Amino acid sequence: MITLPLCTTKLPLYKQIYDWLKTEIQCKNFKPNDKIPSKRKLSEHLCVSINTIDTAYSQLIDEGYILSIPKKGYYVCDIDVYHNINIVQHDSAPLNERIRKLKIDFSPSDIDHKAFPYKTWRNHFKSCFNEFDNSILKRTIAQGNLGLRQELVTFLHSSRGVNCDERQIVIGAGTESSLRTISLILGNNTSIALENPVYRKAYKTFEHMGHKILPIPIDNKGIKIEPLRDLSNVAVYLTPSHQFPLGVSMPIGRRIDLLNFANEADGRFIIEDDYDSEFRYIRKPLPSLQSIDQNGKVIYVGTFSTSIAPSIRMNYMVLPLRLLKIYNQIFSEFGSEVSILEQKIVEKFISEGNYEKHLNKMRKLYKDKRAHLIRELSIFGNQIKVVGESAGNHLLIKLITEKCEKEVRNAAIENGVKVYPVSDYFIGEVLSKYENIYLLGFGALSKLEISEGVKLLYKAWH
Amino acid sequence: MITLPLCTTKLPLYKQIYDWLKTEIQCKNFKPNDKIPSKRKLSEHLCVSINTIDTAYSQLIDEGYILSIPKKGYYVCDIDVYHNINIVQHDSAPLNERIRKLKIDFSPSDIDHKAFPYKTWRNHFKSCFNEFDNSILKRTIAQGNLGLRQELVTFLHSSRGVNCDERQIVIGAGTESSLRTISLILGNNTSIALENPVYRKAYKTFEHMGHKILPIPIDNKGIKIEPLRDLSNVAVYLTPSHQFPLGVSMPIGRRIDLLNFANEADGRFIIEDDYDSEFRYIRKPLPSLQSIDQNGKVIYVGTFSTSIAPSIRMNYMVLPLRLLKIYNQIFSEFGSEVSILEQKIVEKFISEGNYEKHLNKMRKLYKDKRAHLIRELSIFGNQIKVVGESAGNHLLIKLITEKCEKEVRNAAIENGVKVYPVSDYFIGEVLSKYENIYLLGFGALSKLEISEGVKLLYKAWH
Repeated sequence: MITLPLCTTKLPLYKQIYDWLKTEIQCKNFKPNDKIPSKRKLSEHLCVSINTIDTAYSQLIDEGYILSIPKKGYYVCDIDVYHNINIVQHDSAPLNERIRKLKIDFSPSDIDHKAFPYKTWRNHFKSCFNEFDNSILKRTIAQGNLGLRQELVTFLHSSRGVNCDERQIVIGAGTESSLRTISLILGNNTSIALENPVYRKAYKTFEHMGHKILPIPIDNKGIKIEPLRDLSNVAVYLTPSHQFPLGVSMPIGRRIDLLNFANEADGRFIIEDDYDSEFRYIRKPLPSLQSIDQNGKVIYVGTFSTSIAPSIRMNYMVLPLRLLKIYNQIFSEFGSEVSILEQKIVEKFISEGNYEKHLNKMRKLYKDKRAHLIRELSIFGNQIKVVGESAGNHLLIKLITEKCEKEVRNAAIENGVKVYPVSDYFIGEVLSKYENIYLLGFGALSKLEISEGVKLLYKAWH
Repeated sequence: MITLPLCTTKLPLYKQIYDWLKTEIQCKNFKPNDKIPSKRKLSEHLCVSINTIDTAYSQLIDEGYILSIPKKGYYVCDIDVYHNINIVQHDSAPLNERIRKLKIDFSPSDIDHKAFPYKTWRNHFKSCFNEFDNSILKRTIAQGNLGLRQELVTFLHSSRGVNCDERQIVIGAGTESSLRTISLILGNNTSIALENPVYRKAYKTFEHMGHKILPIPIDNKGIKIEPLRDLSNVAVYLTPSHQFPLGVSMPIGRRIDLLNFANEADGRFIIEDDYDSEFRYIRKPLPSLQSIDQNGKVIYVGTFSTSIAPSIRMNYMVLPLRLLKIYNQIFSEFGSEVSILEQKIVEKFISEGNYEKHLNKMRKLYKDKRAHLIRELSIFGNQIKVVGESAGNHLLIKLITEKCEKEVRNAAIENGVKVYPVSDYFIGEVLSKYENIYLLGFGALSKLEISEGVKLLYKAWH
């Protein structure tokens, strides 16, 4: 019998015996159909209990290395673990993590980190996370926490005129997650019409989900309806409050036209993405499309990404009652995709008035930054024109220049500044009138950084 | 001129003027094409500043209620907000929230809430959530936090033999979310073969994503391969460590056969759902299929739902390098779906050894509860047989009875106990040999509750 060197490591005895036998079988020291020692014999030989051997053998049987033939004993199986598998060469994939060294990034999707209500959040965590409320550890239904949905009913009604009850609200793991849910509800036969230029993640999400995509040009009132007239199964994805990225606000006339268009066929819907309606600086935000929809044609989508933080991965949508049935058919078996604890924290944040307070503070802050950015840009004189609505946490500028966009952009990059051309948001061809229009996000930047960024741009562009 | 009752409420003056004019237009007191007072006139009439009037008028222009004709003045638009829209009747949808009054729920997906490491979690929150690390407020790439992925590389290798690097790991918002991602990577042309009976949420997810579903019977070694031989584009979804719900563990022979089957065609893959491998009570867990795959054919999926809490909505998957390219093509523009802060907390939980400690504690606890449940079930004598592996936080029992499943189940319900028949997990027809097999989850129950539950079942079934 081959001797087994039992050692004094921390490994349990059965594991050492199991490992040894497995290796012997894999290395062909024990060959297929070889008989291995009986449990009793091995136990005597190694001076370990028969139970230990039994555990090791059972594991080997489970994994198919040996088999037990009643009244005969234990035999090695005819298995060639690693050699049966032909090794196929594979590509290595690119590393999806690049860090760029930039001085100033005018990213349109960043928020002011310093102004985050750390203390309030910490307090809400403390009061939500406790041993006496085990609902924070439990699964919840797909739509999300009832409490948060109830808070949203009131909040969305007072701030955006949204009419709904808590059954209609679905908490999602970010806008894209909600759009995927909408895609599943509408089904693949529904084409998706998008404003062009468009919020790219929405476009990509619908494309990946297999929808026919219809990029529709926009005029000064928003998306054109004429190109859609012949379609009966179509959902129009829109950002009517503050078109992303052009900043156009859709007037009531076009809104009515759109709703009437949707009402003309059963399979027509509107997806209203109200992504930054919280941040309007001059007048109150326009009422939502959902608020004037009487026929359950508008799916309203909103997010906490800009209003709380992009890292929270939480948003919400309001489904028309007529789509709720399909939603329930698909999702009633599933659970919510969003951390229950964080839903509770956000619920408390809203219910105790801290969300409203935070929004007011941020509105003031961003308005201030925006004004500062415009003041700083005045060094460009007539070379830069501010376009779009006074809203959100980015500014839209048109640069008057002979240079092409690529040169302008590269000049900025070479000076350590990143700006975001509107042309990036187009599906297909970019009309020349949209050339050299840039998004300058100021959410994450301090006034000093804004000044520095503009100086660097002046150096790059002037 | 109509008088406007300006009041002393909190509403800003411009808003009162705006509201009044809007109502007048909607109520047809001001008719389409009527001229409304000039800004100067109204300002004098109301004794408010011209700026206030300007703000109100601009808002009305934005919303399309009035229009400004240069050198002429302001006119009411031809818009009939609410009357243009025909009100269509809609169905009201069912309320997706039912609360049942049960004494004992043997749910197979619940965990022990009392044993949750509240104190540790609170400490991790404190150290992760602070003003000096603004990465907790920032978006991260689709795959999730690098730190957590690095921890998982080490953890999965040592606990499950998984071979990968952090590029291959994707943090998801729960198993279903990962399965949707897998679906998008594989595309609709890939059929999905499922063990039958199966984890229903997996089945439903793939079905909704539009895949052809192939329910495959299982024998005592797991899923049969023969029915799949002719398919070249197929992904086999499996729970090889502890088949859900039958509890069978797949022996090495079948595992090799499966890998070889996958290797024979480019479009064949295996989705290994290792959902509760953390909880094995007798021997060490079987190594994962991923650990013996040499050709990038296995997509490994794991979850924190059972090992931490179902409410955390966080899981992970390991993509083979060959699929990473497609993943990046689809998801590189998106952000992670999981709260960044909670990812940081889990990262710390693992890196400081608390996850391992927690698993050891829970393993002991569940093993104990399981033994207690088996002891209590002995009052049934031969009427109940425990089947399946000694693993997870549920037990599988076969009830020997003349009664049909419906009667058995109803008798339990009438006595305030909920049990989960295996037949619920079948796609299509249920073979008679699977009748009267029940899952009894014990994760969330105390020993006292287990005893009470068994007594009630005895009353119901004996």
